[in-house]
Amino acid sequence: MKDLKRFAIIGNGSWATALAKIILQNEKSINWFISKQDDIRYFKKFKHNPRYLSSIDFETEKIVFYHDIKEVILQSDVLIFAIPAPFLKETLSPVASLEGKFIVSAIKGIIPQDNMTVAEFFNVYYKIPFGSIGIISGPSHAEEIALERLTYLTVATKNIEIAHIIADRFKCHYIKTNVVSDIYGIEYSGVLKNIVAIAVGISHGLGYGDNFNAVLVSNAIREIKRFLDETYKHKKIRRINTSPYLGDLLVTAYSQFSRNRMFGAMIGKGYSVKSAQMEMTMIAEGYYAVKCIKELNNKFKVKMPIMDAVYNILYEKISPAIEINILADKLH
Amino acid sequence: MKDLKRFAIIGNGSWATALAKIILQNEKSINWFISKQDDIRYFKKFKHNPRYLSSIDFETEKIVFYHDIKEVILQSDVLIFAIPAPFLKETLSPVASLEGKFIVSAIKGIIPQDNMTVAEFFNVYYKIPFGSIGIISGPSHAEEIALERLTYLTVATKNIEIAHIIADRFKCHYIKTNVVSDIYGIEYSGVLKNIVAIAVGISHGLGYGDNFNAVLVSNAIREIKRFLDETYKHKKIRRINTSPYLGDLLVTAYSQFSRNRMFGAMIGKGYSVKSAQMEMTMIAEGYYAVKCIKELNNKFKVKMPIMDAVYNILYEKISPAIEINILADKLH
Repeated sequence: MKDLKRFAIIGNGSWATALAKIILQNEKSINWFISKQDDIRYFKKFKHNPRYLSSIDFETEKIVFYHDIKEVILQSDVLIFAIPAPFLKETLSPVASLEGKFIVSAIKGIIPQDNMTVAEFFNVYYKIPFGSIGIISGPSHAEEIALERLTYLTVATKNIEIAHIIADRFKCHYIKTNVVSDIYGIEYSGVLKNIVAIAVGISHGLGYGDNFNAVLVSNAIREIKRFLDETYKHKKIRRINTSPYLGDLLVTAYSQFSRNRMFGAMIGKGYSVKSAQMEMTMIAEGYYAVKCIKELNNKFKVKMPIMDAVYNILYEKISPAIEINILADKLH
Repeated sequence: MKDLKRFAIIGNGSWATALAKIILQNEKSINWFISKQDDIRYFKKFKHNPRYLSSIDFETEKIVFYHDIKEVILQSDVLIFAIPAPFLKETLSPVASLEGKFIVSAIKGIIPQDNMTVAEFFNVYYKIPFGSIGIISGPSHAEEIALERLTYLTVATKNIEIAHIIADRFKCHYIKTNVVSDIYGIEYSGVLKNIVAIAVGISHGLGYGDNFNAVLVSNAIREIKRFLDETYKHKKIRRINTSPYLGDLLVTAYSQFSRNRMFGAMIGKGYSVKSAQMEMTMIAEGYYAVKCIKELNNKFKVKMPIMDAVYNILYEKISPAIEINILADKLH
């Protein structure tokens, strides 16, 4: 069994900040990598993250901050990555080896160009065995964790024993945990739901209502299951209507906090992709994900009308009104 | 084949009004039963429903109004019932026979005392064969139909040929239709989702957030499927993630228009059942439904933690905070 003593958070977005808060409920101290030294100085002085979830007060004496990625890795056993997928490679560029580390991905996205999930990336580029990789998922807007609202997280790893050890570090009075072994399904459904949230946002921006969105989301969970089952059949039957799959889709598609949905709504209202991105301070991962999924699915050819529609709108510049109208005929 | 020429709407709530609007897109004229003569006079004079969806202007020369239930039945072939389930028996009390009529139920509720669905009620009390009964379902807030927002309706009948004839009368530029044969599943899921919406409302009223609700709703669709499959296995596999099941649950659980959710939210905030009911002008069918389902399930003993929690709060006067806290431990 690995030594899983020292946890590090890699990233300083809202999800990274929420996870740090949770881990500090159980651990006496954590490591935290934040790339900008100015942000670390601010954090230490004012005892909260300068940019995200700044309502959370941290006991900063329990945090060892690092701005050097190599140093934080050296000093940690479990690395929890919570940065946008498109920035992962760049963040890790100084790092040659991650041998002996346990990797936890809290990233719901796909590595652009490579078209790999985060687990696949660590496996291929850093030779980390899948048994040393865990995924954190579940319906969880970071903003609600800041408010200590009850949230269910799922830990997916191939090694169920380690899954329970990791899950226990997350458990607290506002966090309940599950463990599953379906890394592939959890990662891809985490990627796909962001694209669905963009579709919901686009429809909403165009003036479609709740009646339509209910149909769109019902079709979406079937589309997600179809993709997962046709591209990777899980040994055990994949229970798609559980929290880490359907629950995660629902929270993203229906919540006011979802930035993918917000991005979609701007597109639906007529913003260009560029101006929508400029208006938003946070990254909408579904924008990158849909291109990767489209390219991946050129091989698999799974029927994915919702993903295709979002791709056509964002990358082929087809009018959202026309594309959603065509999509509506394919839904039922 | 039956003569399905003359359609009648029975009821004058918002759903009845929305259905009348839809049918008048295709039919030159309809019959409409409204019990109060004053309401009919107002309707004729101002060309809109006095109480519900009054933004819809009707060409009243296309409507033959009746306040006598026996008369409207005599003059119609297809009877579309859209009144709250608890009022159905009373409305039909003067009616001895419905022989030769095709019954369409747009009611999502259960007949109190009898603990029967609407189709079961017509079958048992009026000897209407199931082949002459259709159910209209699908995610459809009447308010959005008033706004002509795209909506998908499902017609469930045992006779697929008739289902298509009925469905064709509903199709228009803002209505798409499906047909299925699973009357039992569609009716009971329509009943159960109202109870779920109350549970969502209660949690929301107590301060639980979107993260929790996503878990609650994911558990709910599994609870609904469990109930349907354990009490009545449909010949064909029941596709629970399609619009009339999951879609209908989503629109009710997540929409601002849901009166069951609103009722639940008031309970969660500390209103008594009586005062919540007095504050609301519309009936929350889930309140009656949960008692019926609880009594029914005494026989079947399906595991239904969400329904049990709502029952305990509404009928056993258990504190919502305690009951939802207990429920939260059973969800995953």
